[in-house]
Amino acid sequence: MKHLQHDSIIPLYHQLKEILKESVDNGNWNTGDKVPSENQLMDEYGVSRNTVKKAIEELVQDGVLYRIQGKGTFVSKPKFQQSLMGFYSFSKVLKEHGMNPKDIVLDIREVKPTAKTKEGLQMKNNESVIELKRLRCANNEPIILESSFFTKKTVPDMSKLNEIGTISLYDLLEQQFNIVVTRAKEAFEPVLIRADESEYLQTKEGLPALLLERTAFDKEGNPVEFCRSIVRGDRCRFYTELT
Amino acid sequence: MKHLQHDSIIPLYHQLKEILKESVDNGNWNTGDKVPSENQLMDEYGVSRNTVKKAIEELVQDGVLYRIQGKGTFVSKPKFQQSLMGFYSFSKVLKEHGMNPKDIVLDIREVKPTAKTKEGLQMKNNESVIELKRLRCANNEPIILESSFFTKKTVPDMSKLNEIGTISLYDLLEQQFNIVVTRAKEAFEPVLIRADESEYLQTKEGLPALLLERTAFDKEGNPVEFCRSIVRGDRCRFYTELT
Repeated sequence: MKHLQHDSIIPLYHQLKEILKESVDNGNWNTGDKVPSENQLMDEYGVSRNTVKKAIEELVQDGVLYRIQGKGTFVSKPKFQQSLMGFYSFSKVLKEHGMNPKDIVLDIREVKPTAKTKEGLQMKNNESVIELKRLRCANNEPIILESSFFTKKTVPDMSKLNEIGTISLYDLLEQQFNIVVTRAKEAFEPVLIRADESEYLQTKEGLPALLLERTAFDKEGNPVEFCRSIVRGDRCRFYTELT
Repeated sequence: MKHLQHDSIIPLYHQLKEILKESVDNGNWNTGDKVPSENQLMDEYGVSRNTVKKAIEELVQDGVLYRIQGKGTFVSKPKFQQSLMGFYSFSKVLKEHGMNPKDIVLDIREVKPTAKTKEGLQMKNNESVIELKRLRCANNEPIILESSFFTKKTVPDMSKLNEIGTISLYDLLEQQFNIVVTRAKEAFEPVLIRADESEYLQTKEGLPALLLERTAFDKEGNPVEFCRSIVRGDRCRFYTELT
């Protein structure tokens, strides 16, 4: 066990936070383990309740730990690591990690395009678009709330999107509509999860999330899909290499 | 002016939100412009106060508008667009956008490495590291709060980091320490801005931010810098292309 340095310029709560974080990183504490009580940690490290509270609070904020009301504090699952270095499929990434991807189709409908959707799909008119709204899960845990938008030119018959449960979206676009997606542009920014989104994602309003906007293009460079995803920040982490 | 469709399945607040967003996008409303009052918008679009409130609230959450207590609601500045497709320099990106980059050095000091810093710098001991903490501004507006960490092997004399005001960090590493950074790994996840960070960034606690962690490597593949940045989500947006 590492001891805290009471004469250090590093605040005690921060030292404690780092020690507890290491317990998770090196596997001393495992996913789902209950973290010792405040009293136990106070005794073990000889620090005040405030110090323990603050260290735990930051680890909860960082997503390393999570709380269940009335039950205690537990070790979070590790985040999904998603590379942005190539065209990726959420389902494929999960399978590579030995996880079971599942998409729940929430809605397939005609909607008026938002300004962003019109921009993404390079639409010049106000024609309605087809929205495919899905909840994307890993081992039955909801991770991403996602809406894909298509012009009616791309998807003339939206009933054909119903097959999406058994096949990937891009495979479906190819088989049903003869559209081959070859590249995409992706933009992302941090946002807070909204009340309506939190219900689908089974998490709390106001937690950090990544808003991901993707435009996918076919071989001819025409935009064929505009996709808006809310990705749970407590479950995902993205990375890239810069050269 | 576009009218709301009261018989649409799209909620009125959402329709209003889109119309107001377009006013910003097409330049009818400019950066810094004051948004009409709730009463004016209620009259203009024939909707309830609740509808106006909800539309404005979401635009504030999206960062399109911002509020000043007691003064009203205003149009935000457009976000900085940052490509992740190549090695980038914040200062260079700003200059390309005709903006004036300025870095404020907050601290240069020796600290105990956190678990993350040790991992990033591939340290096997607990030796203290050099932290260079900077506030990175665009046209005097703070955008990024950034701490770079170096081992003492990389930066044997931390006083030489003082020149950072006049030269880029990587140029300084090359000139002073003969270290040429050739590539980097970057990971990012959405977080909430903390109280201590919000003071530097002149923004509010709990707003969305991007936590960016970069490890920079030299020609031989040795990690030379581990950098932790908090990027204001209301001011920055990242994008990439996937092929």
